[in-house]
Amino acid sequence: MSRTVTTLTAQALAERLGGRLEHCPPERVISEVKPLEEAGAASVSFLANPRYVGKAKESPAGLILVDAVVDLADRPVLRVKHPYWSFAQAIRWLHPEPVAEWSDTPVHPTAVLGEGSRVFPGATVGARTLLGRECVLHPGVHIGDDCVLGDGCELFAGVVLYRRTRLGNRVTVHANSVVGSDGYGYVLIEGRHDKIPQVGWVEVGDDVEIGACTSIDRGVLGPTRIGAGTKIDNQVQVGHNVKVGQHCLLVSQTGISGSTRLGDFVTLAGKVGVVGHIEIGSRSVVGGNSVVAKSLPEGSFVTGYPARPHRQWTEAQAALNRLPAFMKQLRKG
Amino acid sequence: MSRTVTTLTAQALAERLGGRLEHCPPERVISEVKPLEEAGAASVSFLANPRYVGKAKESPAGLILVDAVVDLADRPVLRVKHPYWSFAQAIRWLHPEPVAEWSDTPVHPTAVLGEGSRVFPGATVGARTLLGRECVLHPGVHIGDDCVLGDGCELFAGVVLYRRTRLGNRVTVHANSVVGSDGYGYVLIEGRHDKIPQVGWVEVGDDVEIGACTSIDRGVLGPTRIGAGTKIDNQVQVGHNVKVGQHCLLVSQTGISGSTRLGDFVTLAGKVGVVGHIEIGSRSVVGGNSVVAKSLPEGSFVTGYPARPHRQWTEAQAALNRLPAFMKQLRKG
Amino acid sequence: MSRTVTTLTAQALAERLGGRLEHCPPERVISEVKPLEEAGAASVSFLANPRYVGKAKESPAGLILVDAVVDLADRPVLRVKHPYWSFAQAIRWLHPEPVAEWSDTPVHPTAVLGEGSRVFPGATVGARTLLGRECVLHPGVHIGDDCVLGDGCELFAGVVLYRRTRLGNRVTVHANSVVGSDGYGYVLIEGRHDKIPQVGWVEVGDDVEIGACTSIDRGVLGPTRIGAGTKIDNQVQVGHNVKVGQHCLLVSQTGISGSTRLGDFVTLAGKVGVVGHIEIGSRSVVGGNSVVAKSLPEGSFVTGYPARPHRQWTEAQAALNRLPAFMKQLRKG
Repeated sequence: MSRTVTTLTAQALAERLGGRLEHCPPERVISEVKPLEEAGAASVSFLANPRYVGKAKESPAGLILVDAVVDLADRPVLRVKHPYWSFAQAIRWLHPEPVAEWSDTPVHPTAVLGEGSRVFPGATVGARTLLGRECVLHPGVHIGDDCVLGDGCELFAGVVLYRRTRLGNRVTVHANSVVGSDGYGYVLIEGRHDKIPQVGWVEVGDDVEIGACTSIDRGVLGPTRIGAGTKIDNQVQVGHNVKVGQHCLLVSQTGISGSTRLGDFVTLAGKVGVVGHIEIGSRSVVGGNSVVAKSLPEGSFVTGYPARPHRQWTEAQAALNRLPAFMKQLRKG
Repeated sequence: MSRTVTTLTAQALAERLGGRLEHCPPERVISEVKPLEEAGAASVSFLANPRYVGKAKESPAGLILVDAVVDLADRPVLRVKHPYWSFAQAIRWLHPEPVAEWSDTPVHPTAVLGEGSRVFPGATVGARTLLGRECVLHPGVHIGDDCVLGDGCELFAGVVLYRRTRLGNRVTVHANSVVGSDGYGYVLIEGRHDKIPQVGWVEVGDDVEIGACTSIDRGVLGPTRIGAGTKIDNQVQVGHNVKVGQHCLLVSQTGISGSTRLGDFVTLAGKVGVVGHIEIGSRSVVGGNSVVAKSLPEGSFVTGYPARPHRQWTEAQAALNRLPAFMKQLRKG
Repeated sequence: MSRTVTTLTAQALAERLGGRLEHCPPERVISEVKPLEEAGAASVSFLANPRYVGKAKESPAGLILVDAVVDLADRPVLRVKHPYWSFAQAIRWLHPEPVAEWSDTPVHPTAVLGEGSRVFPGATVGARTLLGRECVLHPGVHIGDDCVLGDGCELFAGVVLYRRTRLGNRVTVHANSVVGSDGYGYVLIEGRHDKIPQVGWVEVGDDVEIGACTSIDRGVLGPTRIGAGTKIDNQVQVGHNVKVGQHCLLVSQTGISGSTRLGDFVTLAGKVGVVGHIEIGSRSVVGGNSVVAKSLPEGSFVTGYPARPHRQWTEAQAALNRLPAFMKQLRKG
């Protein structure tokens, strides 16, 4: 992977962001942006939601961006006006997104194609991308820089893989689907939505099949993951940082919001919506057109909006149909 | 149409699948896989759902894949452990999907373009594909092998037609739509989802218009059909084996699950979902964001989830809004 | 902009449409089709819905297509059997859509690229299209004729801009999205849906970001507009003539029907549907999976189908869950 390694001292970060260091030596070297739970001694992280003060106190992050009032005891902090926006800025400086490398040829000279792999006319392959054996890239497939594909992958016409996408073996992606697009992340600052840079990637396991016109966003800083054996239908949307387990079924027009986790063998029927930052336990089934707004334990079977136990939902709908007559009757009685 | 004709004897099928023949001469030649209702003397079919025993007894299929216990009297059966999975295997053997033919040129040398048809730079046309007169393929259109387009078709940039797609005359397809992608069909076997090969095609009638970013899956073994004069909006999903009648309106973000049939002049408003294997009668109207879970007679007007007569739904929603106050009042009274 | 200027006299229109002129000199020159509220002395407009008689009477349109019975006092009218269909015909004659210009090269010789702009292999640019400075067109981007892009735009692989699309500065469009496709407009005439020609365009303001697999239809005659600073997620659908204000957030799988207007800082959460021809006031928030069926004042916060005040919706859903037990209890009591 070709990444420009960039570092900044805590002092430099403080100056750029107009903030004040506490409990942190100014010469500390910061080389990466990480969420609190993954941060290390050279990481800068942030705390915007007071709910996570406990997590922040336990984090070994080398520096934590906080506002003027939050109390993190002796943790090394950088006090700034807008911690979340400052986090976005830090991503820009420490994880600059490289521009796509120019190529005069459809397949970049540094790309490597495994034995038996075929790239049809009109398809393009980016710099340093590695294809396994017996892959087929149909016309109009566009693969970015620094991708890795296993053996036996077939990408139908018009599929786009953004840079750094990783596909396992025998992955099939149907026409005009997109893997690795930027997630939807903005911070409102001075009356405009400023982008949280999306510099992560997508990892797709072995034997995954992805339908047509589906989009899977890359993570903000790390991976969005689709587990081995999972089958995704057409027009499905998977948000940034989502982790889908193995052997799941995501039926057409379903959408999963950012950072949500699905266990294994989860079935989301057609047009399901799942909010962000929740967990759906393994072997759960969500009925069509439902909206899951809270985490679900293993083996759940839910339907409706908000999703509730399937039987409760069917009984409620039956009662709802009788409700107008019921109300009229009671008023008379 | 270039299809490799492959046949197997009943005995060979039995050996490959590890099954036992009953009421079937081992030397019987099987040349195709067909559903029970379309099967003939050289067809192998399958029965996985006991509900269809009657249909299976009446089928003239040359061989029917069944489990160890089902009783089909004297019909020729092959008893196997997993009839549905065995059916998938039989498709693989009897209907092998040919690989896309290589071409050094954007238009394959065996493709034929009618008078006045234009293929823009960046578009590709597959082997043996026939275009009628005055067709326009915008840049980045990719048409697979063995397709047939009538006269006056216009495909906007990025449209993908999978192999064997058939378009009538004056069909318009807007940018980045996909016609003929694989349907969503899997069978759970030994803890993984194994693919039911999708080897059918899509037939689109005259004067059909298809919006942008729409996907229409091909049938499993036969056609998915869109009737003449039907207009499909953007981001619509049509599942495998669906039959849409003539002059229907399918509004944006609607999804129709596999094997469902629509009559003529049916209107599905925006974001409608229709479950699989049902029928919606002609001149029916389904309100926006509804889910149709049961067949509907001609001239229905339904809304909601599950869809119910429109007036019933509006009355129920009005009653629902009054319900909290109503409950409180009753508790007090 | 290269437009063939075409004019017709009122008399010629009457003859072509088989109609009768009233209060209109036959030699009046008609050069454009316009809605009532935008029409001028050289415009032909139409009145199909009796609700708009007042608007028609006030319109300075040079000619108004009406049916046999409507009374517009002394306004110049052309009485025809099918005013709406006649309107569609008039668009065909007065605003004929030019065919896409042929190019032997990926970038049309008349296109102009600003300094530092890069067009990757496999991308195409249409006739007379102007790109600002430092734009990036990734592989497989297809831009139609007569488009204008500002500085610093980045279009990811497979993006399609239809002719006449206008992008401001620093607009980002993610892979396989479509801007400028035809809106969904038909008129039922003699048992078939005849197309209302869609000859407008799309205008996108500065600093707009558009996700992957999203589609934005052009206006019928004029613009569809996306205001500066608005951020659109993946798989969003925006219908013809929609006007989205500045700094709005349109989350994934949301759909907005034709001619609807959004103020500034409006948030539509995931999978929201908005019907056509309504207004959503600035700073409104619509909860996920809701359907907005009526105009909303500024600062609304609504959820459900039909959308209602958020708190009313949550209370109604809570009551609905208790309803079956409540009914049972009342029956017993």
